[in-house]
Amino acid sequence: MKKPIRPEIPRKTIYRLSIYLRCLQRLKSNTIRTVSSDALAKAAGVKPTQLRKDLTYFGQFGTRGLGYDVEQLAAMISDLLGTKRLQPVVLIGVGNLGLALLSYRGFEQEGFEIVAAFDVRADRLKIKQAKQPFYSMERLEEVVRDRAVRMAIVTVPATAAQEVTNRLVACGIAGILNFSPIVLQVPEDVTVNNVNLAIELENLSYFIQD
Amino acid sequence: MKKPIRPEIPRKTIYRLSIYLRCLQRLKSNTIRTVSSDALAKAAGVKPTQLRKDLTYFGQFGTRGLGYDVEQLAAMISDLLGTKRLQPVVLIGVGNLGLALLSYRGFEQEGFEIVAAFDVRADRLKIKQAKQPFYSMERLEEVVRDRAVRMAIVTVPATAAQEVTNRLVACGIAGILNFSPIVLQVPEDVTVNNVNLAIELENLSYFIQD
Repeated sequence: MKKPIRPEIPRKTIYRLSIYLRCLQRLKSNTIRTVSSDALAKAAGVKPTQLRKDLTYFGQFGTRGLGYDVEQLAAMISDLLGTKRLQPVVLIGVGNLGLALLSYRGFEQEGFEIVAAFDVRADRLKIKQAKQPFYSMERLEEVVRDRAVRMAIVTVPATAAQEVTNRLVACGIAGILNFSPIVLQVPEDVTVNNVNLAIELENLSYFIQD
Repeated sequence: MKKPIRPEIPRKTIYRLSIYLRCLQRLKSNTIRTVSSDALAKAAGVKPTQLRKDLTYFGQFGTRGLGYDVEQLAAMISDLLGTKRLQPVVLIGVGNLGLALLSYRGFEQEGFEIVAAFDVRADRLKIKQAKQPFYSMERLEEVVRDRAVRMAIVTVPATAAQEVTNRLVACGIAGILNFSPIVLQVPEDVTVNNVNLAIELENLSYFIQD
């Protein structure tokens, strides 16, 4: 039997890998070379058993009594997540939120480069202060193909989101970060992560009730 | 035995209530009066059994063969989520992301009003184009108490996030929407929802690998 190249890994494990990576990067910048699973788990806000279970999906790491090599574990996780090279990303919908995301430094620090922004309204070009090139929607397919882009950030109104998504999928986008408050329909091999800021607040609202 | 006022409801159910509410609001604006659980579940991107299970936490709804009364179910969910009245919210950290959130209309549409913004750098006042009042950090406690604010949006750098959180908790904030890329330590009765945009992209990056 051939070993599968990519085992079925829970989505939550992938999320937690990102958190472990950030903790490891902080340790690295503090010139700490090894970390116990207990200490790393605490920094990440998870139980040590959870951390160990998450890492076993990817093989054996760490030395009993010594813990993990910070640099080695960070490199492994970064490799797994596919963020070792700079990933090109396009952004569709340059409203307030889109504009903010264009100037958000957090993405580049983590290995993502928004290579182009698109909007139906060409006049939005005037108000933008972003460094990324800005195009009208007609050039979407061309730019995505020329730059071999596989990821997109969608910040268009709900009414336009599905149509934009169909176009993105058709030209080869495989991962969509969706800020529109609708459920996008995509083929099985396309991944959508939804960020709905209003829903996050609404959810908090439930928990703060007396 | 007294019936508990608030049963232990899974966090994911609370999230899905927000999605159901949005679907119901869309139906309402299309003057649709009743909806079957199958149709509502489809619009929300969940299985009908999931929808029915989520709603049973809150009592019996719907009439067999007729489905749910759209207006009634929407009002019930809105009441449950505590979004019937406008909720005051403060925002801490007026960088690019903070500024965008201040002008993001999605919050008000959903019942949240950012009543004040705070930043350590008073000079940021100059660049702001937001309509909300803007204060230096010294006035945080005063404004939170005066306006009886219970929710905060934290968009400060990671290095300042825990200190800001401690101050928020101390003056009565019970729900925090955290955009800083660190795990905030809070007492048990305080709820933190994390939005980490870089992690969302990183997570997508894993799934788009060939």
